[in-house]
Amino acid sequence: MSIFEFLFGKREHKTANVARDRLQIIIAQERNTRDSENDTPDYLPTLQKELLEVLSKYVKIELNDINIAHEKRDGIDMLELNITLPESKRLESSAIDLPAPTAEA
Amino acid sequence: MSIFEFLFGKREHKTANVARDRLQIIIAQERNTRDSENDTPDYLPTLQKELLEVLSKYVKIELNDINIAHEKRDGIDMLELNITLPESKRLESSAIDLPAPTAEA
Repeated sequence: MSIFEFLFGKREHKTANVARDRLQIIIAQERNTRDSENDTPDYLPTLQKELLEVLSKYVKIELNDINIAHEKRDGIDMLELNITLPESKRLESSAIDLPAPTAEA
Repeated sequence: MSIFEFLFGKREHKTANVARDRLQIIIAQERNTRDSENDTPDYLPTLQKELLEVLSKYVKIELNDINIAHEKRDGIDMLELNITLPESKRLESSAIDLPAPTAEA
């Protein structure tokens, strides 16, 4: 078995009627050094916000299509973002092809 | 079993001498719509570069401490970043507390 089996939840229950593309982002930090328990600030929540900003440059993301879970276990701090992508994912000006719009004077 | 068991590789083989904190980021896209096979640009590699830029605001990342794997299977496109964090992760000016340095005139 590999991690593929656990992406997007137990895949065996993958129902046929999942008709939209989905995006899953997992950020996990494993703390192995004694001092890291307390000296490392918990930046995952802040990081999460910036990741969504970066993502929204590539795909249209609707706020209510985002599901966020934050879990701590076995010395691992895990943030999981599950995003259902809208039917047409292409942005009006696709972030990849067109040059950045110039600022109006 | 849950995804925790698969984070940072098979945890059963987790050797005692892992003495540094580790960070793992998984970005997975599941393509379920017929047209998405060809119309959605493969933005994961570009996204990966931006994610590392965002991350390096929070933790010191050395290039040779980053391991990147890109796999496509079962309609899932998965990008996996494994980063071993340096001993002292705090940035000189920690990205979270201090205001951004002003540009020199």
